[in-house]
Parts: sequence; structure tokens; C-alpha cells
Amino acid sequence: MSDPTDGAEDNRVWTLARRPTGTPTMDCFDFETRPRPDPGAGEALVRTRYLSVDPYMRGRMRAGESYAEPWDVGAPLEGGVVGEVIASNGTSFEPGELVVGNLQWADYVAAPDHALTRVDVGDLPASTALGVLGMPGRTAYFGTREVAEPRPGDTVVVSAAAGAVGSVVGQLAKMAGAYVVGIAGTDEKTAWLRELGFDATINYRSRDDYDAALAGAAPGGVDVYFDNVGGPITDAVFEHLNVDARVAVCGQIALYNATERPTGPRKLGSLIATRARVEGFLVSDFSARYETATADLRRWVEHGDLECRETVTEGLENAPEAFLGLFEGDNVGKQVVRVADA
Amino acid sequence: MSDPTDGAEDNRVWTLARRPTGTPTMDCFDFETRPRPDPGAGEALVRTRYLSVDPYMRGRMRAGESYAEPWDVGAPLEGGVVGEVIASNGTSFEPGELVVGNLQWADYVAAPDHALTRVDVGDLPASTALGVLGMPGRTAYFGTREVAEPRPGDTVVVSAAAGAVGSVVGQLAKMAGAYVVGIAGTDEKTAWLRELGFDATINYRSRDDYDAALAGAAPGGVDVYFDNVGGPITDAVFEHLNVDARVAVCGQIALYNATERPTGPRKLGSLIATRARVEGFLVSDFSARYETATADLRRWVEHGDLECRETVTEGLENAPEAFLGLFEGDNVGKQVVRVADA
Repeated sequence: MSDPTDGAEDNRVWTLARRPTGTPTMDCFDFETRPRPDPGAGEALVRTRYLSVDPYMRGRMRAGESYAEPWDVGAPLEGGVVGEVIASNGTSFEPGELVVGNLQWADYVAAPDHALTRVDVGDLPASTALGVLGMPGRTAYFGTREVAEPRPGDTVVVSAAAGAVGSVVGQLAKMAGAYVVGIAGTDEKTAWLRELGFDATINYRSRDDYDAALAGAAPGGVDVYFDNVGGPITDAVFEHLNVDARVAVCGQIALYNATERPTGPRKLGSLIATRARVEGFLVSDFSARYETATADLRRWVEHGDLECRETVTEGLENAPEAFLGLFEGDNVGKQVVRVADA
Repeated sequence: MSDPTDGAEDNRVWTLARRPTGTPTMDCFDFETRPRPDPGAGEALVRTRYLSVDPYMRGRMRAGESYAEPWDVGAPLEGGVVGEVIASNGTSFEPGELVVGNLQWADYVAAPDHALTRVDVGDLPASTALGVLGMPGRTAYFGTREVAEPRPGDTVVVSAAAGAVGSVVGQLAKMAGAYVVGIAGTDEKTAWLRELGFDATINYRSRDDYDAALAGAAPGGVDVYFDNVGGPITDAVFEHLNVDARVAVCGQIALYNATERPTGPRKLGSLIATRARVEGFLVSDFSARYETATADLRRWVEHGDLECRETVTEGLENAPEAFLGLFEGDNVGKQVVRVADA
């Protein structure tokens, strides 16, 4: 391993030091310096601008099968990256182009052309390609429109409502004519949700009695629940589901660090009386329609119909800390790590 | 209260003596003798032939709100009844006609015409109006076709597969071209399911390891689960759901007698990777299409495409026992109580 300070040809890379038990800690990550890669035939050399840290990555820290490929111990971590092509040994990209891909947590990466997608964020920051115009935005878009299906007059509850996905879900539900309740963990977050047009908010950390909080915020019951968290918050929302309610299961961040198999109240019985539909989804199931989604989201942002916020952590060296902060609810909106300026 | 033996003008009636805690017992029921009712204006006098006992009635023993109206303490029990009109003071029915309704557990009942529906079971026994041609048959019909939606080649698992609903569900799934696994609690039941054409069966009482049993019976995983039971059997099936699986939640008989709020492993997370849809339903949501369903079911039975079995308990006096037996799994097929012969 070379010295991290030994020159411009070096490349800093985060690798997985060990798999965590329970909540991940800094010693799960190794920061290595490797030589800057050369692009092989059909590859481009990408300079990382921003990298994305997302709750689903907790699943990649496990060895077991999941919908996301596990990270390997000793190997570079990977995730959403937006960067600039600085050299090309392929036919698809020119230096200076902005691309996204599932790339290493590194300053530079040589990636085959087919692993990269050209992005056009217009006048928006490049980081939006990882947020509202990227995976979280599209997750909100398809999860809301295709799974949760809010209708005018519906009461929609969103958990982790101030996160990258939830904040977009709530705004899309408002566009659909729904009454929207956001659940988040700080007063700063709930204040922001009000600015976004949420009709009611719950700071779950300042309330003991989720049931009473929901009865107050959603007195007519819940027609749609967009679940990013699972656990006791979700238990409480299930008690308020209306007839024909829809539950879109997007994430279960409250359970990701559990060391024992999580248990809780059995809820299937309540689905009979409510005839509720509970459905999990993955954004990748909608990949054929990503372009439409991204175009819609970009237009809404540009027209001021959709607001987005980012929490930017400075420096590749702080990427693990930014990731760990997701589980503490440190971020408002999309959490990204700035690796290099344009 | 008059003497139960004091003459032909008497009417025996079961009433709710008290609400149960946990598993209901015989002392929850009172057998009273009341005068035989006279039909008022717009009413018919019905002689009960068969009455239906169904697991959902456990919910009617509770005071709380549910989809089924609670039985009142001291008042006659009610449920599905098929009977013969023996006198009419209305305009809709003639003596001799066979009708069904949600009527008292009694020898005779005077009911308004609008509470009765004429039935034509053809050459089939009158009791089928409470089973395959009644609520359970229609529950299976709509639950299978509209909620579970088995497709050719799907693996379909049915719990309480030898019950009134499950036995029809499995046969309809076979008609749809699925590979069908039935879970039941005795070897007699599983043998019957094999006769019905089920591809594999599990006697859950003879297996400790439901997971291994399912891996053996459904080696390709589960595309559709029709759940009548809830609890540990359902937990195990959820571990075997395939991508895009559908779960129709029809009943949760394993939990109906619980004295504490049932808990179990949290399952929402597994819905993300599988993108499974879990949906509760009530047959009453499909009431506009009952006639079509009943006509289809009757034709299939008459043509030998659909087999049904009934467990007949003799005598109104034994109705509570027949009801309690549902929770012991005593019945094969539809449990009815014969009150009077034709």
C-alpha cells in the first residue's frame, strides 16, 4: 500500500474491512491508497465528483443474498457516483462528459462504457444526479405513482419524510391532490416538510404515543402509507389504515441494524377488515421508464414544483461517516459526499 | 323461558350467554325455547334446514368493531342459514321455496323478505347453499381469481386447505394451471387433498420444521399464498415467496382465540426483495357478482370439475359444538349443522 500523500497519480479508495454486527462502525471501513487506474479498452477514466450513501447499502455489508450485490471484504465499496470523464479508451464518452454509474468509493475509477450513463442535469448541481434526478428520485416517482397510487383527497403518510425519497414522495402526493402527513425525527425536518407543503407532520422523537400523534395528524385515517422505516412507527400507522388502503414498502431502516430477527405485532389480520394492499417494490423494476421519470422530475424541479435539499459531506475521507449518519437521521434530504469540484 | 319439550309451537334458539376470553367454551352459549314466531307484514316464516358455522364468527363474539356485526349478549346468534319458506306474509316468497339468509340459530325464524335470497341448488343438497354455492365457495372464487391470481405454472400454497374455502381455492388454482400445495392438519385431510388433485400436501401437525416441509413441497418457491390461518405456518411460507408473489389474506384462524396481541417475526422487509403484494379481502366486496360466481361454481360441481365435501353435525342442539370444532380442525370441507330434513 502506498502513502496517501505521495502524489497526483494516487487514488484513494474505501474498502470493506469487515462485515458489521449490528450498527456499523468506522472500523468496518479501510481507506487505502492505490495507483490511479488506466482505462482499458472500452473503458473510460472517471473523476468522482459526488458519491451517494444510501440506507440500502447496509444490506450490501451482509454476505447473504439480497436484491443488492454484497460488498466483498477487502474490496472497494461501490455505490452511486456522478463524475466527469477525464480520459476515454472507449467509443461512448468524451472527456468532460458527466456520467453516473455504480462505481467505487474512490477519487478515480476506470469503468467500462456500458457501466456508465451520460447525465444532463441542466443548470442543476451535478449532485442532483444522485438525488432527485437519480435513484432516490426515481424510487419516489415509481413508488408513489405505481405502488402507493395516491388519489385526490386521500390521506398519505410518509415515514422518513425528510429523507431523499420521502421528501419527494410527499411532494408528489401533494401534486396528486392528497392530504400528506410526514413523519420525521427533528423539528428542523418537520419545519422543512411544512415548507414543502406537507399538511401535517409528526416528530416521532418528541412523541411517545405514535397512535395519538397519528390520530391527530390523520383524523380521517390513512389511505396510503409510504414506508421507509418499518418497526414501531409502521406498527402504529397500520392501526390507522382505512378500507382499501395501500402500503408501499420501500425501506425498513429501523430494522437494518438489528442483531436479532426483529419481531412485532402481527398485522395480517387487520388487512382483512381493511382490504388493504401491502406491496414491496424495487426501483430497478421500472428501469425501462427511467428516462421518462428523470425528465419529469427535472422539469418539476426546474419549474419550482418540486423542491429538493441535499446534505453534503465534504471529502471522500468522510464518506463512511456520512453513511453511518444515515442511521442516526443526520441528513436532511439527500445525503451525498463531495469528492471533487467541477 | 318455556320447557324445550312443550310442543310443536316451540322454537329452539341459541343465544350468546357471554363473550369468551380466548378459546370459546360451551358456557358462552345458551339454548332457549321461545314461542315460534309469526311472520309480520312483508315477512316469511322460514324453517331452518341447515345452519353454517364459520371461523369468522369468532369475531362476532367480540364486542369490538369488525367487518362482521358483533353478536349481542343475550340475543340469538346469527349466521348463514338455508331453509324452507313455510308461511309467507310478504310478496316475494311462496311456501316451499328454498332461501338463504343471515338468520338466527333457531328452528324457525320470521324474516323480512329483503333479508332472504331464493336459492336453486339443482340436484345438489340444500346444504351446498352454505358451502360451495354459498359464502365459502364465493370467498374462494373471488379470493383466488381477483386477489391471488394464480397463473399457469405458478406454485400456489393454500393453508387450511381442507377447509370449506381452502379446498375450493386449491381446485380453482389447479384449473388455472398452477402447481398446488395444500397445508392441513390430519393425514385424512391431506389424503383427500391428493384426491382433489393437489400436487403436494403438508400435514403441519406431523412436521416440526415448516421451513423444510415447504422447501420439499414447493422447491421452486411460492408464487401465490392463500392464507386462511396466519401465525407460524404463514411465517414459514413468507420465507419462500418468489419475486412478484401474491398473498391473499382470507383468514387468520390461528390467531382468533389469542388472549394477548399476537406477535411474530417482522416480514415487511422481505416484501422489498420479493416485490410481493399482500392483500386482504372480504367476499362482500364482490357482492355485485355473486350470481356469476354461484353459477360458475354450480356448473363446475355438476360437471365434476369441482368436488366438495361437508362435515354435517346432526341437530340444532349441537351447533355450538360444531362451531368450537372449527378451531380444533375437526371438519373436513364445509362444516354445517343439520336442523331439519326436507
